[in-house]
Amino acid sequence: MKSYVEMSREELANERAMLKSMYEKYKEMGLALDMTRGKPSPEQLDLSVGMYSNLSKDGYKAKDGTDTRNYSCPAGINDMREVFAQILDTTYDKIFLGNSSSLNQMFDSIMRAMVFGEHDSDKPWAQIEGRKWLCPAPGYDRHFRVTETLGFELITVPMTESGPDMDVVEELVKDEKVLGIWCNPVYSNPDGIVYSEETCRRLASMKTAAKDFRIYWDNAYVIHHLSDDKAKQGKVPDILGLCEEYDNPSRVYEFASTSKVTFAGAGISCIAANKDNLDYAKKIMAVQTICNNKVNQLAHARMLPDLKAVMAHMSKHAGILRPKFEMVDKVLSENLDGTGVATWHKPMGGYFVSLFVMPGTADKVVQMCKDAGVALTPAGATYPYGKDPANSNIRIAPSFPSVSDIEQAVNVLAVCAKITAIDKILEA
Amino acid sequence: MKSYVEMSREELANERAMLKSMYEKYKEMGLALDMTRGKPSPEQLDLSVGMYSNLSKDGYKAKDGTDTRNYSCPAGINDMREVFAQILDTTYDKIFLGNSSSLNQMFDSIMRAMVFGEHDSDKPWAQIEGRKWLCPAPGYDRHFRVTETLGFELITVPMTESGPDMDVVEELVKDEKVLGIWCNPVYSNPDGIVYSEETCRRLASMKTAAKDFRIYWDNAYVIHHLSDDKAKQGKVPDILGLCEEYDNPSRVYEFASTSKVTFAGAGISCIAANKDNLDYAKKIMAVQTICNNKVNQLAHARMLPDLKAVMAHMSKHAGILRPKFEMVDKVLSENLDGTGVATWHKPMGGYFVSLFVMPGTADKVVQMCKDAGVALTPAGATYPYGKDPANSNIRIAPSFPSVSDIEQAVNVLAVCAKITAIDKILEA
Repeated sequence: MKSYVEMSREELANERAMLKSMYEKYKEMGLALDMTRGKPSPEQLDLSVGMYSNLSKDGYKAKDGTDTRNYSCPAGINDMREVFAQILDTTYDKIFLGNSSSLNQMFDSIMRAMVFGEHDSDKPWAQIEGRKWLCPAPGYDRHFRVTETLGFELITVPMTESGPDMDVVEELVKDEKVLGIWCNPVYSNPDGIVYSEETCRRLASMKTAAKDFRIYWDNAYVIHHLSDDKAKQGKVPDILGLCEEYDNPSRVYEFASTSKVTFAGAGISCIAANKDNLDYAKKIMAVQTICNNKVNQLAHARMLPDLKAVMAHMSKHAGILRPKFEMVDKVLSENLDGTGVATWHKPMGGYFVSLFVMPGTADKVVQMCKDAGVALTPAGATYPYGKDPANSNIRIAPSFPSVSDIEQAVNVLAVCAKITAIDKILEA
Repeated sequence: MKSYVEMSREELANERAMLKSMYEKYKEMGLALDMTRGKPSPEQLDLSVGMYSNLSKDGYKAKDGTDTRNYSCPAGINDMREVFAQILDTTYDKIFLGNSSSLNQMFDSIMRAMVFGEHDSDKPWAQIEGRKWLCPAPGYDRHFRVTETLGFELITVPMTESGPDMDVVEELVKDEKVLGIWCNPVYSNPDGIVYSEETCRRLASMKTAAKDFRIYWDNAYVIHHLSDDKAKQGKVPDILGLCEEYDNPSRVYEFASTSKVTFAGAGISCIAANKDNLDYAKKIMAVQTICNNKVNQLAHARMLPDLKAVMAHMSKHAGILRPKFEMVDKVLSENLDGTGVATWHKPMGGYFVSLFVMPGTADKVVQMCKDAGVALTPAGATYPYGKDPANSNIRIAPSFPSVSDIEQAVNVLAVCAKITAIDKILEA
């Protein structure tokens, strides 16, 4: 297809008329398609349907004899700590198991720092006026919302193909008010970018003005590959090990969960940290609660006893997800290749496709889609304060809808992207 | 038996020699008995052993069709909110379901107030220098530890047979630095006291200097009766309703859980609050997490669909617990009646027996028990800062050990109480 910017005004007007009539047809179809959030589909949830079926066998006991039904074991049963250690390429003693939500653990971690400070802080973070947090963007809206709600100024860091722009990060952390950074290192939300080893090493080794600076390493999609082909699978180094190697052992909190492995609303989350961070956090968490849900930990450990079992399970997820991601790419390509009005990532894993439409049009595209019954994450959501300075990025979440629904929804999206692009060009 | 204080020194010396030889015999037995914590016994946990067996039936769906396996429903599924509403004599819209630990919800609630303030606060509580919290004592050590850790000065309030001494409370809340009070209204930990209606009304209606004063109403044992006889069952009025009646609608957060209904480490907890408090908390909790574990909520709701099912289930618990409490009372009576050196409560429910030994001896009694292989909650634990001013109260937790272990342990305890009492009298 001819690039829109090379078209004459007349060609554009004709193209627009054709697209508009397609759009009106979509509108008449009364669609109700939802691609707003990275939710697993029922088919994916069905993969774990038998998880609770053999719990009463051996009396709900963990391998070491712990009765998971009773109080005890604040850090969680070793059976499941070991599984997460294998997933995160670390050791089980660095793992603390939470309940279902890793976001909850991130929030609670920063809350602890707010009220008590970190073990290496001079004072509680709540007392630091003008505290700041680095937000590589596009990024995860819920991350940004945590630090915004907790009174941090959010500083946008551009994303590159190898992770956050480290030249920018290294400059920004010279400010002692900058206390941390959100990272989503494998198949980043929404771009699907895998941080390069160099990025990881620079994050672990950089000099920060704040001695209690923290990396929040949300490894949400660490094993969420779309392909079984090892060569195509993203992998980053063990960040805990790297931070130790560079003599910044307390710099990082790592997080993961089984929300997109077993059940999104009933999985197991974990925090991984070095001994100083974990001992400090555990002291406060021991005041907060006696223990988390160990029966659910046991259910997980029995179904997924080791990394091999986990990866076999993840391969089934990939089998369900791959056709959906392929459909997104196919429809976008068919509609947009050559037009010059949009680009998008082709992620090898994770839960999203990040689409960049013509600058200044993303909000209009999302609104037009909504009017035609296709719900997308609000434009801007992937940036701090919900404001994309280029008004260009749209996050597509293809996991929940069916392949045919995706085909329809992305066709609508592409038509809307083209119409708004033409309007933008004609305006100029 | 003759009262010790009426005995001659010679009689006391003889009595002591006899007791000492009994104690030495116990010591030689190499006992290892644990009565430190209010843990359900395996027999109690077995009552809920089938809880997860029919989850996959109907595809893990709540009554309204919600797929409990996926994200959604931050306040929890209505099926289980309704059960808690019946338990707490309120309505389901006031109920927010958490994960397994109600202590976690209490901690998080005060953390929110610390960082954000309450909806009716002038500023975050962390900014209130010299903030104070009322602690009816004897009370629950984990309550006290939360507010101590969060920088509150703990103010001891004496317990009476009808709850906290309200004359004292009403005086103390004239101080605007006093921001809250711990209450455990039904079968209080450790005394087993049930607050009178008058106490509840005075708490709901009293004038507090702090306009954002909060009652933390931990209704942990609300349905944990030892008897099926309704006349013997403790009951307090719905505190949310009372606070509304007296025009202090935001004064109270109420908490409950199924920790001692189903599984201590894997139950469902809830917070109950009026609309203003709940809306305010939910706004922050929506940043903290997407949702809590709804699969576990569904498992609970299917096994215990309404109050009737819950009470039938609790009756089975009572059947297991009653003989244990009776044994504690029997052994204490046999050993201590008439000696004048100890008193204790005869609770109609809950998890503890509160024993008062001769003032100034509780720590020695606990140490002697420990030396003989009987572990008790540390003396003083039931008071703020772990310091019982009278050094008299000992909390007995009879739920976990077997009846015969209890018999032995309480015999040891009684012997130790008598020896230390005699020493005390002889010292004087």
